[in-house]
Amino acid sequence: MQTNATDEQIQSVVARMVEIGFNVHRTTGTVQTILAGVGTPGQFDHKDFELFAGVAEVVRISSPYKLAGRSFRPEGTVVTFPNGVKVGGDEVVVMAGPCSVESREQIFTAASQVKAAGAKFLRGGAFKPRSSPYSFQGMGLDGLKLLREVGDTTGLLIISEVMEISQIEVMLPYVDCFQLGARNMQNFNLLREVGLVRKPVLLKRGIAATIEELLLSAEYVLSGGNYDVMLCERGIRTYETYTRNTMDISAIPVIKHLSHLPILGDPSHGTGRRDMVPAMARASVAAGADGLLIEVHPNPDKAVSDGAQSLFPQQFSKLMDELRIIAPAVGRTIATATPQSQPATVSVG
Amino acid sequence: MQTNATDEQIQSVVARMVEIGFNVHRTTGTVQTILAGVGTPGQFDHKDFELFAGVAEVVRISSPYKLAGRSFRPEGTVVTFPNGVKVGGDEVVVMAGPCSVESREQIFTAASQVKAAGAKFLRGGAFKPRSSPYSFQGMGLDGLKLLREVGDTTGLLIISEVMEISQIEVMLPYVDCFQLGARNMQNFNLLREVGLVRKPVLLKRGIAATIEELLLSAEYVLSGGNYDVMLCERGIRTYETYTRNTMDISAIPVIKHLSHLPILGDPSHGTGRRDMVPAMARASVAAGADGLLIEVHPNPDKAVSDGAQSLFPQQFSKLMDELRIIAPAVGRTIATATPQSQPATVSVG
Amino acid sequence: MQTNATDEQIQSVVARMVEIGFNVHRTTGTVQTILAGVGTPGQFDHKDFELFAGVAEVVRISSPYKLAGRSFRPEGTVVTFPNGVKVGGDEVVVMAGPCSVESREQIFTAASQVKAAGAKFLRGGAFKPRSSPYSFQGMGLDGLKLLREVGDTTGLLIISEVMEISQIEVMLPYVDCFQLGARNMQNFNLLREVGLVRKPVLLKRGIAATIEELLLSAEYVLSGGNYDVMLCERGIRTYETYTRNTMDISAIPVIKHLSHLPILGDPSHGTGRRDMVPAMARASVAAGADGLLIEVHPNPDKAVSDGAQSLFPQQFSKLMDELRIIAPAVGRTIATATPQSQPATVSVG
Amino acid sequence: MQTNATDEQIQSVVARMVEIGFNVHRTTGTVQTILAGVGTPGQFDHKDFELFAGVAEVVRISSPYKLAGRSFRPEGTVVTFPNGVKVGGDEVVVMAGPCSVESREQIFTAASQVKAAGAKFLRGGAFKPRSSPYSFQGMGLDGLKLLREVGDTTGLLIISEVMEISQIEVMLPYVDCFQLGARNMQNFNLLREVGLVRKPVLLKRGIAATIEELLLSAEYVLSGGNYDVMLCERGIRTYETYTRNTMDISAIPVIKHLSHLPILGDPSHGTGRRDMVPAMARASVAAGADGLLIEVHPNPDKAVSDGAQSLFPQQFSKLMDELRIIAPAVGRTIATATPQSQPATVSVG
Repeated sequence: MQTNATDEQIQSVVARMVEIGFNVHRTTGTVQTILAGVGTPGQFDHKDFELFAGVAEVVRISSPYKLAGRSFRPEGTVVTFPNGVKVGGDEVVVMAGPCSVESREQIFTAASQVKAAGAKFLRGGAFKPRSSPYSFQGMGLDGLKLLREVGDTTGLLIISEVMEISQIEVMLPYVDCFQLGARNMQNFNLLREVGLVRKPVLLKRGIAATIEELLLSAEYVLSGGNYDVMLCERGIRTYETYTRNTMDISAIPVIKHLSHLPILGDPSHGTGRRDMVPAMARASVAAGADGLLIEVHPNPDKAVSDGAQSLFPQQFSKLMDELRIIAPAVGRTIATATPQSQPATVSVG
Repeated sequence: MQTNATDEQIQSVVARMVEIGFNVHRTTGTVQTILAGVGTPGQFDHKDFELFAGVAEVVRISSPYKLAGRSFRPEGTVVTFPNGVKVGGDEVVVMAGPCSVESREQIFTAASQVKAAGAKFLRGGAFKPRSSPYSFQGMGLDGLKLLREVGDTTGLLIISEVMEISQIEVMLPYVDCFQLGARNMQNFNLLREVGLVRKPVLLKRGIAATIEELLLSAEYVLSGGNYDVMLCERGIRTYETYTRNTMDISAIPVIKHLSHLPILGDPSHGTGRRDMVPAMARASVAAGADGLLIEVHPNPDKAVSDGAQSLFPQQFSKLMDELRIIAPAVGRTIATATPQSQPATVSVG
Repeated sequence: MQTNATDEQIQSVVARMVEIGFNVHRTTGTVQTILAGVGTPGQFDHKDFELFAGVAEVVRISSPYKLAGRSFRPEGTVVTFPNGVKVGGDEVVVMAGPCSVESREQIFTAASQVKAAGAKFLRGGAFKPRSSPYSFQGMGLDGLKLLREVGDTTGLLIISEVMEISQIEVMLPYVDCFQLGARNMQNFNLLREVGLVRKPVLLKRGIAATIEELLLSAEYVLSGGNYDVMLCERGIRTYETYTRNTMDISAIPVIKHLSHLPILGDPSHGTGRRDMVPAMARASVAAGADGLLIEVHPNPDKAVSDGAQSLFPQQFSKLMDELRIIAPAVGRTIATATPQSQPATVSVG
Repeated sequence: MQTNATDEQIQSVVARMVEIGFNVHRTTGTVQTILAGVGTPGQFDHKDFELFAGVAEVVRISSPYKLAGRSFRPEGTVVTFPNGVKVGGDEVVVMAGPCSVESREQIFTAASQVKAAGAKFLRGGAFKPRSSPYSFQGMGLDGLKLLREVGDTTGLLIISEVMEISQIEVMLPYVDCFQLGARNMQNFNLLREVGLVRKPVLLKRGIAATIEELLLSAEYVLSGGNYDVMLCERGIRTYETYTRNTMDISAIPVIKHLSHLPILGDPSHGTGRRDMVPAMARASVAAGADGLLIEVHPNPDKAVSDGAQSLFPQQFSKLMDELRIIAPAVGRTIATATPQSQPATVSVG
């Protein structure tokens, strides 16, 4: 309460707190009265109290998420995939591949390249929402089928972005993990629906989302019963424009502290520039990330989308070698490379 | 190009520019070579060029939106509603009402109050996505029916938020204007679908969206053939936390400069605090806004959502009087008040 | 405290709080213990407590500024100048003029023009720190002498920026008001020194400063005994780059709410673009500003600095007319224009 | 130029460009005319052109800094100190110590501890500007003398912050390196003065400064003839409030790309929380930093300033071990630890 709050004003706040369902504790100092509401009341917005006469400040003490909080599962969540790959365990898991599925040859080549370097997941978009209505919008179902085929052939797990509720069922047979993009981080209806399926979800932080909001969005999925949620830092919007976004590396240790969910880094979207990707991938692992999401394209200069931030295959391979040096500093490992027996081409059918 | 770019590097960039469909103009200075691509090529990302060897900087000169640009309709767009109300004309149009439709009595009372003060639209949410999965989620279809009934009774136009494609058809018979919220500003599939209906759309700026991105999103709607688009500034996310968002009043004159579309201000979401709403409503009109979107609730302290930022009816009425003084400074008018013949209650049955 | 905090952890926090000088109030809920420290201890950083084992969150309840807070002088501060001009009273006071003093003719012409339109202060920089070491750096003492002469001739009050401690004494005989620029808002030694002189100070908000930090900086000046402090909103840095800064108009009503000090708006630096200045000047007054700081130049296209954001004299005059319409909406006035008896030129000696 | 720009408008822009000193190249496309100014004219602000009639956009192509740019010294700058320590070479150099010098015992203990762990510099503030006028303000000259004594005793280099011009001469005999803090990054007079001394300077990025602005500030120092400049990323202000600032790790590779100057990371100020410091220190080295600035205090819980972000000595030692694992991933080394022959105490008499 303000220093000059009247008793009447204080009583009126207390009355509303009790009405909502709080037990109210009152601390009277020499200059100020503090009211603490204890309990778990129903719907209310703590900001509402700021407008009561005589109120100086309203502060919410307990965190608004429960299932996503570290104390819900102090030992940490490990998401286990059907082939035994675990995210959140000892190994730092790398998911790599092109922004979009463009053709059979492109995706099979990319898969073979990223697998050889040590990736465990192939990423690739089938539905591509773009900020301009005049840009390429993705291969759709055909892209999904190619992803499944290449996954079955190579043993790579498949991750691809789901953009609306109707796509969940379409994608279910083809992917091993749903990716929810930054623009959909607060698409609450979509969050609720992926909470009802039994397939892991990778949830990306929105470009203007706080860490608390990311955890609240995870809470939506968890509260539907889907506990296989992984989070991903991919850059936030700041005043600095040299990089497309500012990758908030500190979100990695902060999320480790606040939540039990695995946290990955996406240095490709985090920087928007190929030449900055290796540095930020290394930084992510050094900061404790459980995995990485990296765009790699067989021929970035010809990519239909995001070419500027896609690594060349040989850059990716070199980066993986560097990560193998760093991982032990945080008590982790990275899968070994399995150099291809034959060169860049694979049989594509 | 960089000052030390080789001829070979320059040729390689020129070759790619021609391949994409540009006419290339080359300016060779004493220290630097500049390549200008002229024309309207197909899909490409100008950032891709930044990674070519020898390139110093890539700059896009022409604006990426066309239909939303001021030069497309230099005289400005006026959105005309069936009852003759015009947004973008001489009158500054005010849309007011509660955050959510809560009950028959609440919405009829609110409508009568805002109409008396001079509002032309009643706003009210039927579907309420909330950042916590444990909060009130809206009355749905019942809320829409109440809105239509109160609209028909009072003559107020109805505006309500559409949150996903499936809701478009549900809402069509009940509303006079679709509102697209800040979180959906880059939901491109939803933008495309509202571009295909023939009902006005109010598109809110995302909390981390640039003005250019807002205009690109408007372009999505316009490119579907729906030209009745209004824009709305409702606060952006900055480091300042005293207000919920920082309302970017300068976006109002900037959008007037860049686009022909009407631009409104939403001081309720722009500040998140009732005591700051009147100042920011006045500032919006003084800065040239074509309209306002304001939360007003018959009893804000009991509102199920956004109570802290909802005006009391008498505050709204006083604010409208202030706006009537300001509007002439920018060559505009505000509708006169029509004091209610009977007090706060109306027949609700 | 965290839900699982041990008694020992709680005791250790309590012990440290007592050591610092707090009276500690303990509230034990079913799930959590809350410790409230009441009193006014000496030096400590409340963040230090966040690292104690078992602590969930540390919140500072009382505001860290006292002299700058509204409750210190609830009726509001009015800064009165020797010629009777008052800032913080009924009149919205306008300070106008060029960015830099460039020549005798330029400053006399500017003064005559802004005075005719109703300005009460002439602004003009004598020392010009620039972000590039290769730019114009100001006329220095010669500029100050010109400012004093033009002030004495026209009756306009003189405001000019002080950039370091050694300039205070140099400037003292020549100016009626010290301006502290955004870059010096946290130059605490300079703040302390201007707190010791008896001449009004206009303190600008830094481009990344919170409102609380601005008030803390004002506290430095006030704590030295100089109570004639005026604050100024001049734009903050955000991700939006169309305008140079984002002018935070909401800071005006917020500062009115939190502090008793007058608050002005600077739409010239707030936008960086001449064509946006009038809209933001109007918005400032509509939001309740006590004054404006506006760059006006007799010939902006030839200005040595900030030409792009300087108004032409006739634009300024038109703007003042618009402000005269708006001011009554907030219970204020603006000085009447006193059209010049002869045209743009004045005798310049 | 705009698509509808008249020939007259184009001529008027060309005339002004020539007047300033540009050679003008004109490219006429089917829809738009582009004017390119080539040359190195004197003082002008490229933004001024935005206000000319018919101008669509003004873009500056060449970078505004020259001496700080990578092309000025493509091989990179190595700053060599009298005792042979090099910053910018193979070794990642660590500077550690308390925020403030508090006492003889405190600073000698800290020095011995950080030296044992492998630090090459001792950091410690003698002048402490604080955002509240009521906080501890530093030991001043006594602190400097203690720093020099401990430097001479231990062989550690001494770095301390200079806050105003008058302190340069005072500090000169006592320190091996001047630190310019974030708040002074655009104190251009101070920058110019440290440019005239012949002692290395570590320049910290301001909390709202772009990378370009940091390089422009470095340009000030370099243009005075002091080429021993090191830069430091220490966190920028964003909307995320969980950490005090958001440490922009990507600034490290970006600055490596744009400039030849060494770049260090300061994870203590970058996060403001002790528990996040190790992760961000590791991330900095993994991203390619040439050094680190870390706050370490013998007893952080009793520190008079910044205790919450200071590491315990044993945490620092463990961190150094982790960094020794990471450094080879980027082709670097870290000095080996030299465990103390006797325990934590050293002779302080």
